[in-house]
Amino acid sequence: MEPDVARIEQDALRIVDLLCRQPSVSAEGRALDETAELVEELLTDAGFETRQLRADEGPAAVYGDQPGRSPFTLLLYNHYDVQPVDPLDLWDSPPFEPTLRDGSLYARGACDNKGELAVRLAVIRALRERDGELPIRVRWIIEGEEEVGSPNFDEIVRRNVELLRADGSLWEGSSARLPDGRPELALGFKGMLTVRLHVRKLATDAHSSIAAIAPSAAWRLVEALSAIQGADGGCRIRGFYDPVLEPTDEERSAIAESSFAEEEELREMLGLSEFLDGVTGAAFHERAMFRPTSNITGISSGYSGAGIKTVLPAEASATLDFRLVPDQQPDAILALLRAHLDAEGFSDVEVTRLGSAKPAKTPLTDPFVRRVVGVAEAVNGAAASIVPLAPPTLPIIASLQEHVGVPGLAAPDNPTYAGGRAHAPNEHVRLEDIAPAVRFVHALLEELGRT
Amino acid sequence: MEPDVARIEQDALRIVDLLCRQPSVSAEGRALDETAELVEELLTDAGFETRQLRADEGPAAVYGDQPGRSPFTLLLYNHYDVQPVDPLDLWDSPPFEPTLRDGSLYARGACDNKGELAVRLAVIRALRERDGELPIRVRWIIEGEEEVGSPNFDEIVRRNVELLRADGSLWEGSSARLPDGRPELALGFKGMLTVRLHVRKLATDAHSSIAAIAPSAAWRLVEALSAIQGADGGCRIRGFYDPVLEPTDEERSAIAESSFAEEEELREMLGLSEFLDGVTGAAFHERAMFRPTSNITGISSGYSGAGIKTVLPAEASATLDFRLVPDQQPDAILALLRAHLDAEGFSDVEVTRLGSAKPAKTPLTDPFVRRVVGVAEAVNGAAASIVPLAPPTLPIIASLQEHVGVPGLAAPDNPTYAGGRAHAPNEHVRLEDIAPAVRFVHALLEELGRT
Repeated sequence: MEPDVARIEQDALRIVDLLCRQPSVSAEGRALDETAELVEELLTDAGFETRQLRADEGPAAVYGDQPGRSPFTLLLYNHYDVQPVDPLDLWDSPPFEPTLRDGSLYARGACDNKGELAVRLAVIRALRERDGELPIRVRWIIEGEEEVGSPNFDEIVRRNVELLRADGSLWEGSSARLPDGRPELALGFKGMLTVRLHVRKLATDAHSSIAAIAPSAAWRLVEALSAIQGADGGCRIRGFYDPVLEPTDEERSAIAESSFAEEEELREMLGLSEFLDGVTGAAFHERAMFRPTSNITGISSGYSGAGIKTVLPAEASATLDFRLVPDQQPDAILALLRAHLDAEGFSDVEVTRLGSAKPAKTPLTDPFVRRVVGVAEAVNGAAASIVPLAPPTLPIIASLQEHVGVPGLAAPDNPTYAGGRAHAPNEHVRLEDIAPAVRFVHALLEELGRT
Repeated sequence: MEPDVARIEQDALRIVDLLCRQPSVSAEGRALDETAELVEELLTDAGFETRQLRADEGPAAVYGDQPGRSPFTLLLYNHYDVQPVDPLDLWDSPPFEPTLRDGSLYARGACDNKGELAVRLAVIRALRERDGELPIRVRWIIEGEEEVGSPNFDEIVRRNVELLRADGSLWEGSSARLPDGRPELALGFKGMLTVRLHVRKLATDAHSSIAAIAPSAAWRLVEALSAIQGADGGCRIRGFYDPVLEPTDEERSAIAESSFAEEEELREMLGLSEFLDGVTGAAFHERAMFRPTSNITGISSGYSGAGIKTVLPAEASATLDFRLVPDQQPDAILALLRAHLDAEGFSDVEVTRLGSAKPAKTPLTDPFVRRVVGVAEAVNGAAASIVPLAPPTLPIIASLQEHVGVPGLAAPDNPTYAGGRAHAPNEHVRLEDIAPAVRFVHALLEELGRT
C-alpha cells in the first residue's frame, strides 16, 4: 500500500523543528539532558519502550525498543548532539530557531542528523498508526556525543550488548539522493588515529640572535615530520602499510559502477585543476576510499601574527590525523609511530594520542546489505551507488561490529545533499529531499517484514 | 677634575622619569609626536640646536648639534620609542608610571634605551654647567622607530649626511658593567633577512578525510623548510656561506680575551645542559658571533587549539630570520633563497621579505675604537671585553657606515644588565648601574677633547 508521503513529510518537519530548537552542542555540554529527555518522550510517544543508557562519563544515550509482526530486528543509530554554531554572525537566521526559507529548513542539526532522526520517527509513527504495530522489531540507540568523537559509545555498547542485538543496522545515513538521482549506500568507514607531536628545546622563548648556539624546537619538529611523510606523499612510518588490505574484486567493481556525480563539484570547491596524480573516476574513488593517509591538521610554533618577532621558539607542536583502512588498528599504528620516531633518532619528540577509531566495514556480499540495496534501487528507480569504505570516520561502527556483531550500513535515508552545510553556518535540509528519504524508510521496514 | 657623579645620577633619574612617562610604543604609533617634542625640548634645554628630521613616512627623528672646545665631533645615536607592554597583567607597576622599588627604577623603556639617553644628556648638562661649553662637538640623532626595525632611518640618513658627519659615533650602548666588573664594547652587529614562506594548495580548508586525493599545504611547507636547513643545523641554500668572512686573528684574540661571565647565566635561563655541540668559552662566543643562522621564528597552519579539528589546511606559512655576517648581504641572500627553492622544485612556495638589515662592524684597529676602549678600561679599572660582532642586529649601523662613513661602536654607557627585562614586563634599570655609565660618558667626552 502506498504511504501518504505528504502527511509523513509534515510530521517529520514537525519533529525536526522540535529537535532543532534544542541547542544540544556536545562540545559545549549544552542542553544535552533536555534533548535526551525530549528524544525519549518522542520515542515513547511512538510506541517504544525506552531507557537512558550511560557510561561512567558523558551524557546519556537514549534507547528504545519496539516489537513488530516479524521477528526481524533492525537496529537504528542516530545522535541528538550537534556541532557548535560559531561563527554565529555568518548565520542568516538564528541557528536554534528553525526557519523555512526558499524551500529549505535552516537550523543547526537540520541535516546532521536531526533531519534523519525525524524521517525515521515519522515513518515509524505512520506505520503504527496505519497497522497498529510495526512490520519488524525496531531497536534504536541515539547518542549525545557523536560530534566530539563518541568517546563513551564503546563502553555504552559493551554494557548493553543484549539490548542491541539485531539482524541488521542502519548507521547515520548517506544522502537520500545524489545529484544524478542515484541512491548512495556506504558499507564502511575509515578509522582514525589523531596524535599531537610536541618538541620542547628551551625553558623559555629566546631572542633569535642566539640561534647559532641554542637548539630550535621548530626545526626539530620539521625534521621529525619529514621522517613521517616523504615528498611523494607516502607515509614513511615503518610497517604502516603492512596491514592494509587491498579492495576485493567485488569492491573494485562496485567502485567502478558507483556515481561520480560529486567529483567535479569537489574539485571546483577546492580550486584544484586536478586531484593528486590526476586521478579521476574509479581511480579517484578507489584512492579516496582505500588509501590510508598521514595528514597534518595543524602546526604551531613561535609567533605567527603580523610583522616580525625575533624569537627562537622554545617549543613546537603539530597535530596529525592518520585515516586508517582495514586492518590498520589505531593502537598498532601509534606503536609503529613511536618506534619509528625512536629508530630515526627522535626520542625527544613527545607523542600524545588525542583520539582514535578503528576502521570497519560490512562485506558487499552480506545478505542484509543486498536487501537494503534492493529497496533503495526499487524506490529510486536507479542503480545504487555503493561506497565500500567511505573516507570519513564513524567510530560507532567498530563498536557495533565488535561487541554486537551486527552487519550495517549507511542507507539513503538522510534528507541531505552536498550543499547542506553540515558543521557550517546556515546548515539546512531541502524540503525536496525529505520525500525520497521517507519513501525509502517506509519501503525498507515493509520489505524487512516480508521474511 | 672628578665629576659630581651623585648629582649627575639624580639629573639622569629626573630625565628618565620624564621620558618613561611617555607611552611611545612605535609598533602602535602611540605618543610618538609628543615624545619627539619632549626630547627636542630636553636637547634645546641642554644647549643643542635642534630640528626634526623626516623621511616620507614614519615619525620624526630628533636631531641636535652643539659645538665644543675641540673640533672633534662625536655622533650619538639613540631612539625614543619603546616596545609594546603586553602582557600588561604581568607588570607589578604600571609600565608608564616609573616606580622606584628595591633599588631599581621600573618602567617600559627604562633600560631600552631611555636610561642611556638620560645618562648621556645628564653628563652633557653637567659639563656645560661646569665649563660653559662642551669639550667636543656633539651631534645627536634620536629616532622613533628602532623597535620596529628602523624602516625609515636609512632614508633620513641619506637626506642629512652633512648634519651627521663626525669623527666617531656611539651607537645604542652595551651594558655599563658585566657581572665580573669588566666593561663591554661591541664593534659590530649581525645583519638580518626576515622572510615569510607561504604555501596555498586549496581554495578553502577541507575535511581531512580527503587527504588521499588532495594536496596538503602543511606537508608542502615542511618539505620546503627541509630543503632550507638540514638536520645538522647547516643552511642548505646554495651559496649561503660563500660570502662569509672568517674572523681575523685580532678578532679571535679579542674573543679569547673577552668576558665569559654571562655564558652560564644564559645556559641556565634556557634550561640547557649544554649549548649546541657542547661549545663553551671562546668557541661558544666565536660561534654565536660569526656563524650565520637560518631560524624559524614561527610556523602556522590549520588548527592548533584544544582538541581535534579534522581539517586538511588550505594554506601554511612560516617566518624565518637569517642572521647574516659580513659580507652576506640581505638582497643577495634573498635572491639565493628564491633560486634555491626554485631549483629544488618549490616554485609554488611564495617568499615575501618582511625586513632586512646589513651586517656591519668597525675594525678592532680603528683609532677611535682604541681611544674608547682605553677610557672604558681606565674608568672601570678592568680590561675591556670586546665583541667584534654581536649576535643581534642594529640596522642603523650600516646606514651610518655606508652614507656617513663614520666609525662607531656600542660603548659601556647603557645602565643595563642581563636581568633588566628589556622587551618584557617589569623592565627596569638598577640604580647601581647608573654611576658607572655616568663616569664613562664623562671621562670619554673629556678624553676626546684632549686632541
